[in-house]
Amino acid sequence: MEKENKAITSRDVDFAKWYTDVVKNAHLADYSSVKGCIVIEPNGYALWEKMQEILDKEFKKLGHVNCQMPLLIPENLLKKETELVNGFAPEVAWVTEGGNKKLEERLCIRPTSETLFCDYYHQHVKSHRDLPKLYNQWCNVLRWEKETRPFLRSREFLWQEGHTIHATSEEAEAETKQMMDVYYRFHHDILAIPSIQGKKTEKEKFSGAEYTLTNEDLMYNGVTLQMGTSHYFGQKFTKAYDVKYTTKENKEDYPYQTSWGITTRMIGALIMVHSDDYGLVLPPKIAPKQVVLIPIGKDAREPLELAQKLQKELVANNITTYIDDSDKSPGYKFAESEVNGIPIRIEIGKRDLEQNKLIFVRRDTREKIEVAKDIDVVKYTKGLLDTIQKEMYERAKKRRDQLTFEAHNLEDMERILNTQPGFIHAMWCGDEACEEKIKEIKGCKSRCILEDEKAIDEKCVCCGEKAKHHVVWGIQY
Amino acid sequence: MEKENKAITSRDVDFAKWYTDVVKNAHLADYSSVKGCIVIEPNGYALWEKMQEILDKEFKKLGHVNCQMPLLIPENLLKKETELVNGFAPEVAWVTEGGNKKLEERLCIRPTSETLFCDYYHQHVKSHRDLPKLYNQWCNVLRWEKETRPFLRSREFLWQEGHTIHATSEEAEAETKQMMDVYYRFHHDILAIPSIQGKKTEKEKFSGAEYTLTNEDLMYNGVTLQMGTSHYFGQKFTKAYDVKYTTKENKEDYPYQTSWGITTRMIGALIMVHSDDYGLVLPPKIAPKQVVLIPIGKDAREPLELAQKLQKELVANNITTYIDDSDKSPGYKFAESEVNGIPIRIEIGKRDLEQNKLIFVRRDTREKIEVAKDIDVVKYTKGLLDTIQKEMYERAKKRRDQLTFEAHNLEDMERILNTQPGFIHAMWCGDEACEEKIKEIKGCKSRCILEDEKAIDEKCVCCGEKAKHHVVWGIQY
Repeated sequence: MEKENKAITSRDVDFAKWYTDVVKNAHLADYSSVKGCIVIEPNGYALWEKMQEILDKEFKKLGHVNCQMPLLIPENLLKKETELVNGFAPEVAWVTEGGNKKLEERLCIRPTSETLFCDYYHQHVKSHRDLPKLYNQWCNVLRWEKETRPFLRSREFLWQEGHTIHATSEEAEAETKQMMDVYYRFHHDILAIPSIQGKKTEKEKFSGAEYTLTNEDLMYNGVTLQMGTSHYFGQKFTKAYDVKYTTKENKEDYPYQTSWGITTRMIGALIMVHSDDYGLVLPPKIAPKQVVLIPIGKDAREPLELAQKLQKELVANNITTYIDDSDKSPGYKFAESEVNGIPIRIEIGKRDLEQNKLIFVRRDTREKIEVAKDIDVVKYTKGLLDTIQKEMYERAKKRRDQLTFEAHNLEDMERILNTQPGFIHAMWCGDEACEEKIKEIKGCKSRCILEDEKAIDEKCVCCGEKAKHHVVWGIQY
Repeated sequence: MEKENKAITSRDVDFAKWYTDVVKNAHLADYSSVKGCIVIEPNGYALWEKMQEILDKEFKKLGHVNCQMPLLIPENLLKKETELVNGFAPEVAWVTEGGNKKLEERLCIRPTSETLFCDYYHQHVKSHRDLPKLYNQWCNVLRWEKETRPFLRSREFLWQEGHTIHATSEEAEAETKQMMDVYYRFHHDILAIPSIQGKKTEKEKFSGAEYTLTNEDLMYNGVTLQMGTSHYFGQKFTKAYDVKYTTKENKEDYPYQTSWGITTRMIGALIMVHSDDYGLVLPPKIAPKQVVLIPIGKDAREPLELAQKLQKELVANNITTYIDDSDKSPGYKFAESEVNGIPIRIEIGKRDLEQNKLIFVRRDTREKIEVAKDIDVVKYTKGLLDTIQKEMYERAKKRRDQLTFEAHNLEDMERILNTQPGFIHAMWCGDEACEEKIKEIKGCKSRCILEDEKAIDEKCVCCGEKAKHHVVWGIQY
């Protein structure tokens, strides 16, 4: 085994530094002159484009259409729904001057767009014939965070926000569940992240929602990450924004609303779940580039010609492939393809060819595989990509399971959180006071209520009173 | 001929009102509660997505990669390049409060991102090996306009901004020209808009650019629209932002820079060039939906089954097709497909089928074409889409040519501008005073200098001194 990438701090030595080293060395993002905001560099943006491509297709298949609301929200409009404004007021940025003049009314940069969609529904939803409306937008939002970290938490981030409005609560609740399932499947099938899903507690739900469903990831170090939420609003917002429609029975009623979103934070999750001391490791299904071909041997024609031939064949079979025939040394190219997380590297050396060999290198395991040069390279590559995808998921699941614990009392909780945090299963009475008390241990919070999971105790992990919910707890980013 | 769409003012009666009626009735955009900002509705956004898809592919083919700079620019950073800040200062919006606190330094919402890219280059361009960098970003920008009009001019708009940096002026100038050609071809081949291209005068160029190339469209009413510009910056910005690199010869030098952009304004151009009193008319190559199938006859199985069969075949041949089998009346469906600009409508009536007929209706000419039901529908539709694309371009070109004039003196200019404005060709001495004087006639401005076109006079149209440039003039949106 070669030595690890020297530019990257070891994951086991300093996880936080390792993370930012990977972000920087894989050219995913860089800090900017704007405090708390990042530059998403081409490698990072290509990942986001790939995520958008897959999710957007899924959303559209389910009948959603894309649109675009304004970036700015007048203070007056934001204030109509009290819970929402209370939730977001401390973390918005205000535009107070425009065109060299002080504005009469402050405008906030959207932290989320429920208010704007409600304002639009107010104009456009009048009859049952106007329902449902299934909207989505891809955009930037801003939240004035104090502590920031590339992708995981930054003042500006990119996301999609779905907003739908329905005639019945049943339809709206089904939508809320359906979109959570889309996020869950995307995590498991594409990102190879074995997330869990459940319902947020009252304390942790989205300001203004009736309830929030959430998808929760576990990072390699045992810290949890909320990654994708889906909210059911009932009629809360439609009442606050006076969105009324005429039913089939010619009565007036308020429709039911949902929203759901997922962000560039997923890039952070990909790093913290899969990557290693050599840089980024990407599941093949989300990798913008899946294969790199490296011809070796200066002035040797055969390696380059074979690389060109293989590239054509692989690309024709929808495997994204590029050739690195730059004048860097082979060792440099190998390291670069590793730090960038290219799932498969095919080394085509003059001497290997003479011995009828090609070298395949898996990024995830760094295993070198010698194959005969006349094998069906497309078929072999496809198979290897599938294997990598599957094994990355299994490894992440094994790690998640290793870091999944049960706590039966506060001492258990403390012990776990002080030694090795993770997903902590424990029963809860439903009282916010117990959540507050548990939070005192290293800021541990309820991640989600598992509604269909059976009880592991009869009593609340904190107060010992009768337990109501099976909850997963953890320390969060 | 049926009567025109009653919700839409006639184009010949009130062009401005006609325009907003089309925007509204085709559900492209709506006004929002945020002054000067619009909601881009699904039909409008689908057009933008189609434009993005085609252009993005083109950009990437030429080696560009996408990235994302922050939304906000610190005042201090913006001020480094004097010309740019002077050009944009009157029209930016300032964030002065964030997270309930007054900020120490104002942040402006990006009106364009040259400063942010320069700040990034300053960190990342050190050696000739780092050059060229070919970046692009798709994002929103904000300019505090006083007079706004959906798509044509609004405070927030969506665009792409390409930013590249090169070792030599030759490379950078070639890039400037190349990207202008991409815009020009996109207009002619995809949007069916017979634009012209040329160089902006000193007075009209982008603040801070050495020169600006521009693509100019002519609207149906003879008003011109700047639609796509490409700037060559030379070393102006790299010097202002101290972007230095080591050349191959191990010397220090400043690299050369370009930027180029095109916006959602193109949607406005599509309307004003092609649409009519029945609503939107779209060239097939940019239409998000190219064909609508309308089965007619309640409880009749055959029309719907045939529609489903044809949809499958058309979609399999990459023709975007949908069926309208809602419970609206056929007349309503026809009008709706017209106002939305679906290029081809196929009416499948029970009685027509009995007579072995299908009805094709072209949106552009509203011509009804009876065809035998057993023709090769895919082949026929493909051919008809091509014909529509071609004829729409030819009609727009004919209109452009009708509204293209020559002026040999100021009296000509005045007469043309007072009767029917358009593209006005006239010679110019190069003196800004003459531009100012011509502007006094109805705000007429130079659109672009045609560098390769031959002179039509020896003297300047305004002052009568020796002419230097063949310029196209016009009234602008």
